[in-house]
Amino acid sequence: MRTLYHFALSAPSRAIRIALAEKGLEAQLKVEKVWERRPEFLGMSPSGEVPVLVEPDGTTLTDGSVIAEYLDEVYADPPLIGADPLSRAETRRLACWFGQKFAREVTDNLVGEKLMKRFLALGEPDSQAIRAGKANIHYHLEYIAYLAETRNWLAGDGLTLADITAAAHLSVVDYLGDVPWADHPKAKDWYSRIKCRPSVRPLLEDRIATAPPPPHYTDLDF
Amino acid sequence: MRTLYHFALSAPSRAIRIALAEKGLEAQLKVEKVWERRPEFLGMSPSGEVPVLVEPDGTTLTDGSVIAEYLDEVYADPPLIGADPLSRAETRRLACWFGQKFAREVTDNLVGEKLMKRFLALGEPDSQAIRAGKANIHYHLEYIAYLAETRNWLAGDGLTLADITAAAHLSVVDYLGDVPWADHPKAKDWYSRIKCRPSVRPLLEDRIATAPPPPHYTDLDF
Repeated sequence: MRTLYHFALSAPSRAIRIALAEKGLEAQLKVEKVWERRPEFLGMSPSGEVPVLVEPDGTTLTDGSVIAEYLDEVYADPPLIGADPLSRAETRRLACWFGQKFAREVTDNLVGEKLMKRFLALGEPDSQAIRAGKANIHYHLEYIAYLAETRNWLAGDGLTLADITAAAHLSVVDYLGDVPWADHPKAKDWYSRIKCRPSVRPLLEDRIATAPPPPHYTDLDF
Repeated sequence: MRTLYHFALSAPSRAIRIALAEKGLEAQLKVEKVWERRPEFLGMSPSGEVPVLVEPDGTTLTDGSVIAEYLDEVYADPPLIGADPLSRAETRRLACWFGQKFAREVTDNLVGEKLMKRFLALGEPDSQAIRAGKANIHYHLEYIAYLAETRNWLAGDGLTLADITAAAHLSVVDYLGDVPWADHPKAKDWYSRIKCRPSVRPLLEDRIATAPPPPHYTDLDF
């Protein structure tokens, strides 16, 4: 059986959960509290981060972007990165945009400060970082709106890792109620489309006991 | 003619310069002072970052890791990522390690604070960040030593994007004289091997007028 080590509000783990489901690949989910730095887990993941995917033959893969590339090479149908070098470059550019730039400018400032710092016992949330995250998210939503208006999905005609990465990050920020959807109706339209895919529904059911999501979080008509 | 927009101490730009040279691809280099946020450049690179590669047919590619994947797909010989999905995953894991983790923990704290902050007029260097960078570099050099002892190059038998990314980052930190080579002789042996490759020599000739490198910087026997 395939096993994915993850935790509920890890955006890169969510992206791999979506990618696996889009490809019709089943995986047993194991919650890994990375902040406990479990030796057996560090043996699989030198960086100590999730997601980690263990394939049925024991092959162990780390890092969200690396796992996504591997899955697309080994389980090619449906392709989630693109059919030719140029469309793959555009998908990867946007997957980097959301997986690194959005992560640094938005996710880390909001989910990192409000939730992860508590789990990691790193002290009080930094209110300046939270303000920065709430300001930065607007131009990313504008960029999503621009891309989704110009194309069918973010990187072109079909759903790709670009949409999956963006949706994974937005879904964890949305869990906190920090996505200003009302100001960005076109980005909201794009998110509605991805939110109702069967690959995305299960991860919206995850709950953190001490921090429930806002009421609109799982609504398809939000 | 192929054009690469870069600047001298941008580690991701250096990685692409090495990859191009390893593949025998010529490129005209254009220095882009990204902090000036030139509108024509932002038109090519929405994130405003280097490297940007413009292919002879006008195809424009951004982001170091995206450009490296494109080059390896389109100019397959010699392969710099790997021959099969598993070895490609290992190369990508280590390219991520150095391109993201080492960048965040070392390069940003040293080159970012000591040089980039000055160019970007972001104020005085943060001495706590510099201390963190100088502490963090040790475990990365230990990791390089471990990998280079276990394998021939970092990701396996042949030189890959893992070595190229690690060398690009170390070379900019070494420009500041901040690599404690004496404490890490096995990492130094690996770096000596990559430093004398014809693909790496030219970028060690770059100079920043106001900040010359230490004497050992270009020495092959350092």
